[in-house]
Amino acid sequence: MTKKVAVLGAGSWGSILADILTENGHDVRLWSNVPAQVAEMNEFHTNTHYLDDYTYSKDLHAYDDLKEALDQVDAILFVVPTKASRIVAKQVATILKETGNKPIVIHASKGLEQVTHKRISEVIEEEISADIRGSVVVFSGPSHAEEVANRDLTTIVSASADPAAASFVQDLFMNKFLRIYTNNDVIGVEIGAAMKNIIAVGAGMLHGMGYGDNAKAALITRGLAEIARLGTSFGANQLTFMGLSGVGDLIVTATSVHSRNWRAGDQLGKGKSLDDVVADMGMVIEGVGTAKAAYELAQQQGIDMPITNAIYDVLYNNKEINLVIESLLNREGKAELAE
Amino acid sequence: MTKKVAVLGAGSWGSILADILTENGHDVRLWSNVPAQVAEMNEFHTNTHYLDDYTYSKDLHAYDDLKEALDQVDAILFVVPTKASRIVAKQVATILKETGNKPIVIHASKGLEQVTHKRISEVIEEEISADIRGSVVVFSGPSHAEEVANRDLTTIVSASADPAAASFVQDLFMNKFLRIYTNNDVIGVEIGAAMKNIIAVGAGMLHGMGYGDNAKAALITRGLAEIARLGTSFGANQLTFMGLSGVGDLIVTATSVHSRNWRAGDQLGKGKSLDDVVADMGMVIEGVGTAKAAYELAQQQGIDMPITNAIYDVLYNNKEINLVIESLLNREGKAELAE
Repeated sequence: MTKKVAVLGAGSWGSILADILTENGHDVRLWSNVPAQVAEMNEFHTNTHYLDDYTYSKDLHAYDDLKEALDQVDAILFVVPTKASRIVAKQVATILKETGNKPIVIHASKGLEQVTHKRISEVIEEEISADIRGSVVVFSGPSHAEEVANRDLTTIVSASADPAAASFVQDLFMNKFLRIYTNNDVIGVEIGAAMKNIIAVGAGMLHGMGYGDNAKAALITRGLAEIARLGTSFGANQLTFMGLSGVGDLIVTATSVHSRNWRAGDQLGKGKSLDDVVADMGMVIEGVGTAKAAYELAQQQGIDMPITNAIYDVLYNNKEINLVIESLLNREGKAELAE
Repeated sequence: MTKKVAVLGAGSWGSILADILTENGHDVRLWSNVPAQVAEMNEFHTNTHYLDDYTYSKDLHAYDDLKEALDQVDAILFVVPTKASRIVAKQVATILKETGNKPIVIHASKGLEQVTHKRISEVIEEEISADIRGSVVVFSGPSHAEEVANRDLTTIVSASADPAAASFVQDLFMNKFLRIYTNNDVIGVEIGAAMKNIIAVGAGMLHGMGYGDNAKAALITRGLAEIARLGTSFGANQLTFMGLSGVGDLIVTATSVHSRNWRAGDQLGKGKSLDDVVADMGMVIEGVGTAKAAYELAQQQGIDMPITNAIYDVLYNNKEINLVIESLLNREGKAELAE
């Protein structure tokens, strides 16, 4: 059945999700705070800054007025950068208080809020009170936007404490190339999505130093084990980390030269300084910020995260990578499934 | 402390493990049933058919007489091909009955016995009765032999129902580039090691057909979920599949063009027939045989394994790959962690 959906944020991921929802038969409003982008989308059905050579559905309409975009929607999908989530959520709350429709709120951001280290669903729940919205759903998985644009086979998790809301989002997106799995573990899905970039930086470092597949597999597997330890300390289900937002997203991010985090790590492994790598990249390297957040969270929760700590030491304490690897290997032998 | 260890099988993996154990200070006897190989190893300290350009420790001695190799050993490490495991185990049993020393028996084979579909530890336990040996330990993880030969960082699991035996093997191997984790879940470690080759064939197929990273991550993650379902039906711990012999070995095998199974799948994806692929490869493609075993085990255990069944249909029922993928995607929506 046709649903009305507002997609907030018209980057590569937001705009392609809006296009897919339109193709699936829904009435979709894509919101951006950049008027020129809105004009380009409505006139030419393109978004060239993000997805070159791609033409969007003529039935997808863009808005720069948030209130118009939210008019009578059944669902709102947040695809804004992590650091803009709270501000946009405040604006959405103001509008929903007036209009009285209670849409389901979905978000597809991968990260934690700066300083507070809160998950994005926590930020949304704080800013948009439960009486003016439906349930909150997290939408995350191994998905390069460019491949979804190509209608390549892609799997994503729809996670919510409310099973009906998770199924609603599953139905919204599922089609012949997108396969959506439900999960009730919001915490696990969000922690997995945020932490994978740290491991991607580490995988790049190993590659830059000349290590091979064995070392990469070791890093990803043991990195996953410590992410799961951190996640379960917050109440996540350990098995979620074996799923699409854990193992799946790690494979896409930490084994691909297309990942910005991996490339940054690779340059660090080859001996460049962090300042030079950041300057050359000219874009945010999420894993660098997340490594600090994870390090602080691990301290706070009293969780053993040797790989995260090692990457943190390289990034923030100028430790040499080979010395850090040596001390990781010199630890006493462990049990694989030790709690 | 110095231990006496017999390593049975002098392929690339057996010979490099024997060399590492020698370097770790143990008294190691490498057994092969090929006299010319034994002579080459003892005279020139090379094993050129398997590891070109590699020189083994002068303290590593090779034997073609099994009884000499087993003389007073503390441990026996089986690194023979899966299909030779039962025969060699029978010979070992005959000798141990005479000599009376009760060594720990380790094996590093990845596969299931043909026809019976038994795990290799089951085969060993059947042939070498408990009264003439110590505990049985499985040694498995993401480890290209060539990278271990380069002293590249590598992690491996030592799994045994007997914690003391698992720790004994951990101590035997651990050094500054090999890190060993203990696990008490023998079934999970063996099932993970055997099944990963099926997923590697599937990952190659997707690549051959032009699919990208999203599809690869989907296949590996959902493939892992069904391997875990099969494993737990035999009593494995689900979390073992999140570890080195599960996720770890999958990453090394299913994301690497160096994997023979991946290359075979790639050729199939490009439209070659299975007969042609097997003929061109000129070597055993383990994933093809294991797909049949897994298909039969899934039927026997009543386990839903849609990806394994799809790969089986392509390999054994001449189904077209794109039709098989379409029917996988047309299934109803599922929960990620459904039992």
